[in-house]
Amino acid sequence: MRFRVSSQMEYEVLSSSTLILNIHALRTPNQTVLEESLSVEPYLKSEELISIQGENRFMRIEIEQPCYLKINYSAMVDNQTKLIDSELLDDVPISQLDASILPYLYPSRYCQSDKLYRLAYNKFGNIVNAYQKVIELTDWIHRNVEYLSGSTNSQTSAYDTVTEQAGVCRDFAHLGIALCRALTIPARYFTGYAYKLDPPDFHACFEAYIGGEWIVFDATKLTPLNGLVKIASGRDAADTAIASIFGNVICRPISVTSECLEEKFEPFFYHPTTPKGLAYL
Amino acid sequence: MRFRVSSQMEYEVLSSSTLILNIHALRTPNQTVLEESLSVEPYLKSEELISIQGENRFMRIEIEQPCYLKINYSAMVDNQTKLIDSELLDDVPISQLDASILPYLYPSRYCQSDKLYRLAYNKFGNIVNAYQKVIELTDWIHRNVEYLSGSTNSQTSAYDTVTEQAGVCRDFAHLGIALCRALTIPARYFTGYAYKLDPPDFHACFEAYIGGEWIVFDATKLTPLNGLVKIASGRDAADTAIASIFGNVICRPISVTSECLEEKFEPFFYHPTTPKGLAYL
Amino acid sequence: MRFRVSSQMEYEVLSSSTLILNIHALRTPNQTVLEESLSVEPYLKSEELISIQGENRFMRIEIEQPCYLKINYSAMVDNQTKLIDSELLDDVPISQLDASILPYLYPSRYCQSDKLYRLAYNKFGNIVNAYQKVIELTDWIHRNVEYLSGSTNSQTSAYDTVTEQAGVCRDFAHLGIALCRALTIPARYFTGYAYKLDPPDFHACFEAYIGGEWIVFDATKLTPLNGLVKIASGRDAADTAIASIFGNVICRPISVTSECLEEKFEPFFYHPTTPKGLAYL
Amino acid sequence: MRFRVSSQMEYEVLSSSTLILNIHALRTPNQTVLEESLSVEPYLKSEELISIQGENRFMRIEIEQPCYLKINYSAMVDNQTKLIDSELLDDVPISQLDASILPYLYPSRYCQSDKLYRLAYNKFGNIVNAYQKVIELTDWIHRNVEYLSGSTNSQTSAYDTVTEQAGVCRDFAHLGIALCRALTIPARYFTGYAYKLDPPDFHACFEAYIGGEWIVFDATKLTPLNGLVKIASGRDAADTAIASIFGNVICRPISVTSECLEEKFEPFFYHPTTPKGLAYL
Repeated sequence: MRFRVSSQMEYEVLSSSTLILNIHALRTPNQTVLEESLSVEPYLKSEELISIQGENRFMRIEIEQPCYLKINYSAMVDNQTKLIDSELLDDVPISQLDASILPYLYPSRYCQSDKLYRLAYNKFGNIVNAYQKVIELTDWIHRNVEYLSGSTNSQTSAYDTVTEQAGVCRDFAHLGIALCRALTIPARYFTGYAYKLDPPDFHACFEAYIGGEWIVFDATKLTPLNGLVKIASGRDAADTAIASIFGNVICRPISVTSECLEEKFEPFFYHPTTPKGLAYL
Repeated sequence: MRFRVSSQMEYEVLSSSTLILNIHALRTPNQTVLEESLSVEPYLKSEELISIQGENRFMRIEIEQPCYLKINYSAMVDNQTKLIDSELLDDVPISQLDASILPYLYPSRYCQSDKLYRLAYNKFGNIVNAYQKVIELTDWIHRNVEYLSGSTNSQTSAYDTVTEQAGVCRDFAHLGIALCRALTIPARYFTGYAYKLDPPDFHACFEAYIGGEWIVFDATKLTPLNGLVKIASGRDAADTAIASIFGNVICRPISVTSECLEEKFEPFFYHPTTPKGLAYL
Repeated sequence: MRFRVSSQMEYEVLSSSTLILNIHALRTPNQTVLEESLSVEPYLKSEELISIQGENRFMRIEIEQPCYLKINYSAMVDNQTKLIDSELLDDVPISQLDASILPYLYPSRYCQSDKLYRLAYNKFGNIVNAYQKVIELTDWIHRNVEYLSGSTNSQTSAYDTVTEQAGVCRDFAHLGIALCRALTIPARYFTGYAYKLDPPDFHACFEAYIGGEWIVFDATKLTPLNGLVKIASGRDAADTAIASIFGNVICRPISVTSECLEEKFEPFFYHPTTPKGLAYL
Repeated sequence: MRFRVSSQMEYEVLSSSTLILNIHALRTPNQTVLEESLSVEPYLKSEELISIQGENRFMRIEIEQPCYLKINYSAMVDNQTKLIDSELLDDVPISQLDASILPYLYPSRYCQSDKLYRLAYNKFGNIVNAYQKVIELTDWIHRNVEYLSGSTNSQTSAYDTVTEQAGVCRDFAHLGIALCRALTIPARYFTGYAYKLDPPDFHACFEAYIGGEWIVFDATKLTPLNGLVKIASGRDAADTAIASIFGNVICRPISVTSECLEEKFEPFFYHPTTPKGLAYL
């Protein structure tokens, strides 16, 4: 499915700074970046980097002088998703997990799964099928956590959200990941451009590794699962922050768009009568 | 320098389980494993894996039946360290850090550097040289945190330790790492066999990336810095746990040894009159 | 109902210290202390104090020299409880609460009700009757929190327990109180001697102020509600610690007994078919 | 010294609600309320209450209908302070503390002194004089914690502030109290009208019980210590919140004034060359 996505970011840079941005559409076997443009104003040294896992693309900009910085990114992307029957989406035994998957079982800054074992087992431990476990924990988050802009900040973690029960997409994703890992299901953070997200913004959700696939889940239920263009995946927002700022920089409002270039877009959400999982990569 | 190291671990396994062990001496350009033996009793399927960063070796053991499991690891290792003058050990600008180093700037489960910025800057921000910053924060931890066996547990993090001021080697390392990252110095967790550690045990300390080298620091000051045989490095103990247990398993006491095979061993500790940093890799 | 209760405590006192003990049976209109004895060995200055609310009795012992201290308390107590129909046990509007009750609505050290509003409302907010709310939150704690000796310490609070879901009687009580207060139901901590508690120990549970009465609830369900001899009530364990130690003191095991002096004791627990609340004071 | 103080508060009340306000000047032997007026618009049932310790005055307003509520309080107050030489301001042994003082030694919601023992002892434990201890911990807070409006919220506690090192007057006071209690010095929260506070607002600071007096300390150093009109004291902000709202209410900006009615006002701050403590009550 083809999408055109864009983001505009502006920064008031007050001192020499370095900016790391995770805004490029990811290139994967199933996601082709057909065309792409990036402008940085004023002209500054920038470089594209590939993260350690050989997966994420990110951009580093060195800013030597105070300035008013404008970044415009735009891309046309073609990606494919697949739908997998839920009965194929069961736990992969830990003894068969690839070494590259294991880190997604461990607790991370915002996903303290080690503190949620009992809660996760009490709530979801006796559900047999792994897909069903993740569906139910996603539904539980959706029912219990209120989506409330401004209710959390960059330090908020799954341990907070499980009790305080308010947050934004980032918090919903962190809690989903933490509960999965507490149930010994590898899970990772997913950032992307989201078609039909209202108001438009970068979006975060998560992937659980079940049946040998990274299946996408979104406890906010705010956007169709098949309308995402992936930017990055990582252990949590610490790995995949849209912007990491080193220096004295004031962020201005950002603008994000996502447009579907197909004639027809059938929004896809999970539904209990047709239990399937959707994978991007 | 040559060392003979060993570890014996015993587990009462009560259900089918998977065990992931990080006890092998690491193979690096500067650390050669001359000979190595591993025995697992009873005979069980085990495999050696390499972690995603292509660096750590670890072992996965699948245990299908309840049993009393004994693991014996022994190795003869030859490693080299280098000493670098402190004036060469300054901050690497973020704009010049390799993509593989950047993750060590970000907060992790046990090293919530994002919560320590002000404290770190208030205490150490005006020290010019990066080596000196890390030396002083290490000394500060050493003076203020009491080494107290049993005072902490597997959930204790740098955010706890900075206030509660008691812990074990793991906690000292986590706090050192968190303070470094809060000061924009990449830092990682280091586990190893430690010569002259009393009582003998696995040891944890940390490395800070300064002057383009991973320099080792140990806020416990319990063992010579040149007596370590590296097992693993990672963001924190979540990445490099000696043992990760999935299943119903009771740990029995472990036994660890480290012996120096050289005629002469000059214990090396940092000293203000000869400001140098020691690197392993 | 008559009970004979006793406690023996021993301390190895290593420096001059002050000990504050909350072990006396409370004197109230409904709880008469028929006889009472206290011995402190070696002979030391001790005094009985009444807490600020004019309610709790406690004892302060000044220990000028290192010594091995033995305290023996024994009492015969006659107390009365009343049973109140649940339909009479509804919320008292805040506008009608006595000033002496209001503090039990506010968060305290171990009962951070301010962090549990959403969770409490999501789970119990739509239950109409206040008694029923407290019964259901008590049952929820009982089902979800595992009673596990040694799983918590003196710093553990309701905010921890709601997620970590393991603890002892103190933790069960703190969580019950915090949930009540989050639902705008005044609640307080209750310590006492408990008949038929196995193994014998001091016990903690809580009282909720509904229908104008302090109704007792015990999420551990370990002892009959009508077998308690009250020692103290307060906002949480910070107010009513069995022992507060100022100085260098090692605690030795304590011994507690409670015996019913009646011919017949009908253990009383709440049961859904006969919804009644039990009050002590 | 005579002061005229006033506060105006407005609330958009969206449902039937109860409001508890702590805005009245306290009546004490040393603080006389010469005249006082209160208006509540629209006319609503309100009552003045006295808190359980017989000390604080507060007001409860019952609001049965949605309305736009305006509260105007104004008072002329005459109060007296005394200055006490620091050498008279030493620790009161716990064995001599009045029962009414003991609760101020225990941890409370926002002052988790039980988590700060080691830190407090490491930093201030070897200072001999109690006044000097509190002066130094106040100075340490002043140097290390940045006064930053909006950096904290109603859940922020001393345990957060000691590490995150930013906050407002409430946070400065909570940290001061927690450190005092960790050093076995009773301490309580103090709210009041503050002359020369800029911008004008309610103010919070703290009192430490040393030398048998409640000596006032203010780690913000924003207002003269002798320009306060006391509203309330309590364990922390949970006890003495300016406004506790039960219901659906939107707060509008408040307005606070304090004016000195004397010809001459000599602002008093602590100074190392004349070590004295100032007491209000």
